Amino acid sequence: MSAYGGIDLGGTKIQALVVSARNKVLGSARRKTPTSGGPEHVAREMEAAMRDAAHVAGVEVLELVGVGAGSPGVVRDGSVTSARNLPGWDGTFALADHLQRALGVPVRIGNDVGVALEAEVRLGAGRRYASMLGVFWGTGVGGGVVFDGERWLGRGGAGEIGHMVVELDGARCTCGRRGCMEAYAGRGAMEAHVRKLVEKGRKTDLFKLMDKHGRDRLTSGIWARALEHGDELAEHMIERAVQAIAAAAASAVNLLDVEAVILGGGLGVRMGEPVAKRIAAAMQPHLFADDRPPEVEVAALGDLGGAIGASLLVRPRPHARSGRPAKRRAPASAA
Amino acid sequence: MSAYGGIDLGGTKIQALVVSARNKVLGSARRKTPTSGGPEHVAREMEAAMRDAAHVAGVEVLELVGVGAGSPGVVRDGSVTSARNLPGWDGTFALADHLQRALGVPVRIGNDVGVALEAEVRLGAGRRYASMLGVFWGTGVGGGVVFDGERWLGRGGAGEIGHMVVELDGARCTCGRRGCMEAYAGRGAMEAHVRKLVEKGRKTDLFKLMDKHGRDRLTSGIWARALEHGDELAEHMIERAVQAIAAAAASAVNLLDVEAVILGGGLGVRMGEPVAKRIAAAMQPHLFADDRPPEVEVAALGDLGGAIGASLLVRPRPHARSGRPAKRRAPASAA
Repeated sequence: MSAYGGIDLGGTKIQALVVSARNKVLGSARRKTPTSGGPEHVAREMEAAMRDAAHVAGVEVLELVGVGAGSPGVVRDGSVTSARNLPGWDGTFALADHLQRALGVPVRIGNDVGVALEAEVRLGAGRRYASMLGVFWGTGVGGGVVFDGERWLGRGGAGEIGHMVVELDGARCTCGRRGCMEAYAGRGAMEAHVRKLVEKGRKTDLFKLMDKHGRDRLTSGIWARALEHGDELAEHMIERAVQAIAAAAASAVNLLDVEAVILGGGLGVRMGEPVAKRIAAAMQPHLFADDRPPEVEVAALGDLGGAIGASLLVRPRPHARSGRPAKRRAPASAA
Repeated sequence: MSAYGGIDLGGTKIQALVVSARNKVLGSARRKTPTSGGPEHVAREMEAAMRDAAHVAGVEVLELVGVGAGSPGVVRDGSVTSARNLPGWDGTFALADHLQRALGVPVRIGNDVGVALEAEVRLGAGRRYASMLGVFWGTGVGGGVVFDGERWLGRGGAGEIGHMVVELDGARCTCGRRGCMEAYAGRGAMEAHVRKLVEKGRKTDLFKLMDKHGRDRLTSGIWARALEHGDELAEHMIERAVQAIAAAAASAVNLLDVEAVILGGGLGVRMGEPVAKRIAAAMQPHLFADDRPPEVEVAALGDLGGAIGASLLVRPRPHARSGRPAKRRAPASAA
């Protein structure tokens, strides 16, 4: 039986999987992403996580057909450049070569958000739609667009929904620009904003919960717990994020008229259905064709989607997709 | 020699053309759009404009292979529904049938912005690009997206760039929503805003120029003249519009990474190259990949683009496009 490896390299954790040709998870392992060292240190942990997952699956790494990995940063020809949130990774590192030598099997690298969206399109919440917008809400907010069942990459950099402008001269974003959606909705920006408000005297249990659960940052789980506790500042911050995500997503839908919005990412998956409903409701007043809003669905593969999507990088593409509506391009003429 | 008719139905004027198979303009005529009456009255003026253009071209209308018309509103199966800015046109009117009976040749109807963008893609500023964003800046701000040389229509309503959100809880738009780009940049919204400011005592020569040139509204020409006169309020309003258009266009480019932005529409064409440069400069601080901004180009077919594009509705689609870059979709796998 053919088995495939998939690794999702995140800012907080490394998720590795072994899956069957039919996408059954045969083994899974997780390690913390190193917070110091450099790319080689990170690659060593990726290798170890992959070996752990193979061990759980009861296979040798050398038996795997190949290993795919999704990485933040700019991915080109197996190398990763300027991976934000990863230690000492400002330059370019030949991640595919490095892992291939270490693991002894073919390795391919893709963009983390791209592979997670691909997984949803082929195996998850996107299967029912020919066109969709992916919104991956985590430390930053990544995205992607799918037309006729295929991701559109533009000149290679499409999908930056987090940097759509929702407020002229608005909040300063981590990217240095102003008014980006991510400046309101990114977990990183939210935490920075909360810290400022707390300095100014605002009350919240967010940091107590963080300490209690042994975290060093406001993770998705901490945000979710604070909401359950009825923490007012947490609720205010999430509402602000929901409004920003909804404005950007509605803008994208007004421009592209896609069938669905797929909500993934650490925060998106952790908050799940209730927040998808809130985003859908907040999109409604911005939708130009408000009589036929797109479906807003949570990523069906959950937080394993990234690793499953990465494993797709080393598998043959299915020959045909069935059950998709016909293309909706401009006809040669209108009647 | 085959000749084709094209009609651009605008809120202010009806532009009719006769063109050759090679898109040479053989005859042109223009009439004012009726401001009262109903769809039948408008259709009568369209018929008359088409007959005028045929007369100038020295052909009989019955010799035309067909006539295409671009119309505002929702166009479906030759009928036009809720055409804003046209008198008494809230319901549905079978415009193609009506014109076909009157002219005695086949008639096809398309969306006004859609046909104008199609003309730029096939014959104008868009010929050099495989992917682009169309921004048609007039009474409202319409748009369209082109991938791999073809317009993307979504579920039929794609292209509403004027209703992308550039300001959360921002200015009230003519569509009833808040913070839409068109609320800042549409000529209609700009005029309404200026009238309010003048009531509050702001000074401007805009309305003096309007009266002097015998207009009953602030046309593109009046705005252009006011800028030439150094009118401060006009300059302020245009700058505000440029910032809003730039934010929406940059948001679209961040999401779609297209090669070019084509600027058309009454105001876009009238203001031309200088305002295209201003929009490009105002987009720059919002662009995520700011090292490779898209080209911003003025619609090459000028204000005849709509009528030329309409004439394309009744012509066979060219068999192949040469010289376009290869598709930029997601590859089956990344290396």
